[in-house]
Amino acid sequence: MSYIDLKYRPPESDLVCNFYIEPERNISIRKAAEAVASESSTGTWAAVKTSKPYVSRLAARVFEIRKNHIKIAYPSGLFEPGNVPQILSSVAGNIFGMKLVRNLRLEDIDFPGPLMKSFSGPKFGIAGVRKIFGVRERPLLGTIVKPKIGLKTADHAKVAYDAWMGGCDIVKDDENLTDQKFNPFRKRVAQMLKMRDRAEKETGEKKAYLPNVTADTREMIERAGFVKEHGGRYVMVDILTCGWSGLQTLRNEELGLVLHAHRAMHAAMTRNPRHGISMLVMAKLARLVGVDQIHIGTIIGKMEGNKSEVEEIEEQIEKDIIQPDRENNALGEQWGKIKPVFAVCSGGLHPGLVPALFRMLGKDIIIQMGGGIHAHPQSTKAGALAARQAVEAVNAGITLKEQAKSHRELAEALKKWKTK
Amino acid sequence: MSYIDLKYRPPESDLVCNFYIEPERNISIRKAAEAVASESSTGTWAAVKTSKPYVSRLAARVFEIRKNHIKIAYPSGLFEPGNVPQILSSVAGNIFGMKLVRNLRLEDIDFPGPLMKSFSGPKFGIAGVRKIFGVRERPLLGTIVKPKIGLKTADHAKVAYDAWMGGCDIVKDDENLTDQKFNPFRKRVAQMLKMRDRAEKETGEKKAYLPNVTADTREMIERAGFVKEHGGRYVMVDILTCGWSGLQTLRNEELGLVLHAHRAMHAAMTRNPRHGISMLVMAKLARLVGVDQIHIGTIIGKMEGNKSEVEEIEEQIEKDIIQPDRENNALGEQWGKIKPVFAVCSGGLHPGLVPALFRMLGKDIIIQMGGGIHAHPQSTKAGALAARQAVEAVNAGITLKEQAKSHRELAEALKKWKTK
Repeated sequence: MSYIDLKYRPPESDLVCNFYIEPERNISIRKAAEAVASESSTGTWAAVKTSKPYVSRLAARVFEIRKNHIKIAYPSGLFEPGNVPQILSSVAGNIFGMKLVRNLRLEDIDFPGPLMKSFSGPKFGIAGVRKIFGVRERPLLGTIVKPKIGLKTADHAKVAYDAWMGGCDIVKDDENLTDQKFNPFRKRVAQMLKMRDRAEKETGEKKAYLPNVTADTREMIERAGFVKEHGGRYVMVDILTCGWSGLQTLRNEELGLVLHAHRAMHAAMTRNPRHGISMLVMAKLARLVGVDQIHIGTIIGKMEGNKSEVEEIEEQIEKDIIQPDRENNALGEQWGKIKPVFAVCSGGLHPGLVPALFRMLGKDIIIQMGGGIHAHPQSTKAGALAARQAVEAVNAGITLKEQAKSHRELAEALKKWKTK
Repeated sequence: MSYIDLKYRPPESDLVCNFYIEPERNISIRKAAEAVASESSTGTWAAVKTSKPYVSRLAARVFEIRKNHIKIAYPSGLFEPGNVPQILSSVAGNIFGMKLVRNLRLEDIDFPGPLMKSFSGPKFGIAGVRKIFGVRERPLLGTIVKPKIGLKTADHAKVAYDAWMGGCDIVKDDENLTDQKFNPFRKRVAQMLKMRDRAEKETGEKKAYLPNVTADTREMIERAGFVKEHGGRYVMVDILTCGWSGLQTLRNEELGLVLHAHRAMHAAMTRNPRHGISMLVMAKLARLVGVDQIHIGTIIGKMEGNKSEVEEIEEQIEKDIIQPDRENNALGEQWGKIKPVFAVCSGGLHPGLVPALFRMLGKDIIIQMGGGIHAHPQSTKAGALAARQAVEAVNAGITLKEQAKSHRELAEALKKWKTK
C-alpha cells in the first residue's frame, strides 16, 4: 500500500502534521515522505506477513508536498486520548532518526476536536490570572530572583520583597533552583510567602511568588501541595526537563494553583530550522495539557527566536481560532473550550525594551526582567520601579522619554541601557 | 568575576560537562564559553547588584578550550541530589537558545560520586535480566509485534505466540501502541501474558512480554501495577516522550519489574552533531535513573548512529569504569555500584546482520527484529526460527552460510535479505 495520496482531503477528525523534510542524497522527497508517514503510523521497513485488511484504515497519508514541506494526515484512532507522550511517540518518535531523511522538522500539529477535548487545558488562562491580580489592561510585570542560583533563603526573600515593593506583580525562582542545600525548597517557600503577604499589605496590590517545583512527579506534587498549604497561588515547572508525563499528572491533580511553564532545554530541539520540533508545537502541547503561562521568547532579548515566529506562538496560545500561516508553516486550529495561555517574555530584557515588546506582542504578555531590574544602578527596588514606570507609560500611550522626566528610576535605567 | 580558569583542575566532587561550541559571528570562543558557564550556573547577562560574596563558590568554570570543544566544571552544590530534571535545567537548559552561540552540543556529563549515589540505578541490569531468562552467554532475541500499530488484541497475541514459539525470548509492543480502542491496554496485557505462559510451557524456555505503559505518571504506575498483578515481569516506557520526571517516579515505585527504555524522539535532539544533546548523555541519565535495557542504535539498520558512537554508548552503559575517549568526546566515568544496562539494538535488522552486530557489540546485546522476522517468506514463526538460528550459530562460532545448510528458515531469510 502507498502512504501517499495527494488527492486526499483530511476530514476534521484527522490529526494533521506539517513537516519540513530533506531526504538523504539520491532519495526523492516522495520516498522520504512515504517513509515518514509509514514509520509514524502502521508501517515499517519491510512488508510484514502479519498485517490484516482492517489495519489499513489507520495508515497515515501524505496529502501535500510543496518543495520541502509536506503535510501528513493521521486517523484519530491512532492516538490515545489524553496522552501527550503517546502522541509524540507517534508523530515525533523514530522518524527523526531515519537514515532516509537527512533533516526533518515537525513544524505544527492541528489537533482534531475530540482529541483536544480529552485534555483539560489551562485552569486559569489569561482571564483567570488577570482576575487574581485585579489587573485588567496592562502587561503583568515579573522578575526572577538573581543571582540565578546561590543566594541563601533570607537573601533570596529580601530580593523578592524589594522587587514586589518596587512594582513587580510576580517574583519567580530561576529554572535551575529547586531544593538545594543552600536554599531548601520548603524553607524558601515559607519565607517567600511571608514576604509576599507583607508586600501585599504594604502596597495594597496582589503579588505572586512562583516557586520552582521541578522534580520527579511524586516529589513535584508534594512540593505543590506544600505551596498550597502555605497560601501560595502558583507553581512553576521546567516542563521540558520534567517531561510531559510529569506535567500531565501535576495538571490532573487539580490543585487549584496557577501553572507557570519554563521551557529550559527547548532550544536543544527547537532552534535548528531544519531539524527537530518547533517551539510552536511545544507551546500548543503545553496549552492542551493546561499550563496557564509559558515562556515564548522576547525577539529582542538575549535568546534567539525571530519576530514572526514569536508572534505566531503568541497567537496560537492566546487566540481561539487560528488561521493557517504559510510564512511560519503554521496550520489552522480551533481551540474550542481550551482557555488561552498567558505569554511570558523573559531573557535579557530591560525597561527600555518595553515599548518594542508592547508594539510587537500587545498587552497580553507577562514581561519578566532579571538583570534588567537587579542590575539597575541604584537597587532592585529602583529597578522594579523603573520597569513598572515603563509599563505604565506605554500602557498610557506616553513615551519613555516623557515618562522619564518625572520618574528618576526610569531615567537612570534608560541611561544605563541605551536602545536604538 | 570570570567564569574561565584554564588552570583549574576539577576535583572529583565537581560535575564536568563536555560541550561542542560554535560562537555567533564576531564572538570569540572564549566569550561564548564564558556565557555558557555563566548562564548554566550563577550568572546572567548583566552585573546584578544582588549578589553576595558567598555565591561565587557555586560558579562554573571553563577549564579547557580545545578548538570548538570546551570543558566546564560545576560545583556539586549547584545540583539537587536525585533530580534529573534539575540537572538538565542547569547544564542543558537555557544555554542552547543563547544568541551568542550559533551551535552548542552537550556531548557528555561526568557525574561526581555523591550525586551518582543519590540515584538507584537499574534494579536488574544485565546480570539480573540474564538470570530471569537463564541465558548466560548468547545475545537475547526480541521482536516487536508488527504491523506496529493497528492489530486487534487477539491478532496481536497470536503474532507474539508465534514469535515466542519460533525462538524469541522477548516480545514487545511498539512505541506508539499504548491504550487505543482497537487494542486496549488491560485486555492486551491479560491475553499476552496468557500466551506467554503457554509458550513457556510448550518451549520450556522463559519468555517475556514488554507492554508499553507510556502515559502520564499516575496512569503509567497504574498500568505497571496491572502488569505485575497479572504476572508480568517487564514494562517498557518511551522515556523521552514521557520525560525524566515520570521515569524517575516509576523507577522509585520499586515495583520489581524490569524497565525497558525506548528512546522515541531522541533524534530530534541527538542527531545533529553540532547542536543539542548527545545520545550518550541520554543513555547515561537513563542508567543513573535505573532502566535495565535501552535502545542504543544498530549501526547497520534503518536508523542513523555511526559505529564509533554506538560502541561508545554501549561501553558507557555496560562497563563500570570508563576511560575518556577523545574521538567520541566522551569523558571518564566511575559507575560505582550502579549496575550495567543491557544494550538493545533495534530498527531494520534481519538474521543476516547478526554476525556484524555481534562482531561490533559483543554478546551483551538484545537483538530485536520486527520486519526482519515478520516479513520472513514463510511466517512469523519461521522468521523467529531463522533469527534464533543466526544467533545460535554466531554464538557457537559457526558461519551463517554453514548454519543455513541444515536450517531451512535461516537459508530462506538469507536468500531474501542479502548482505554484503
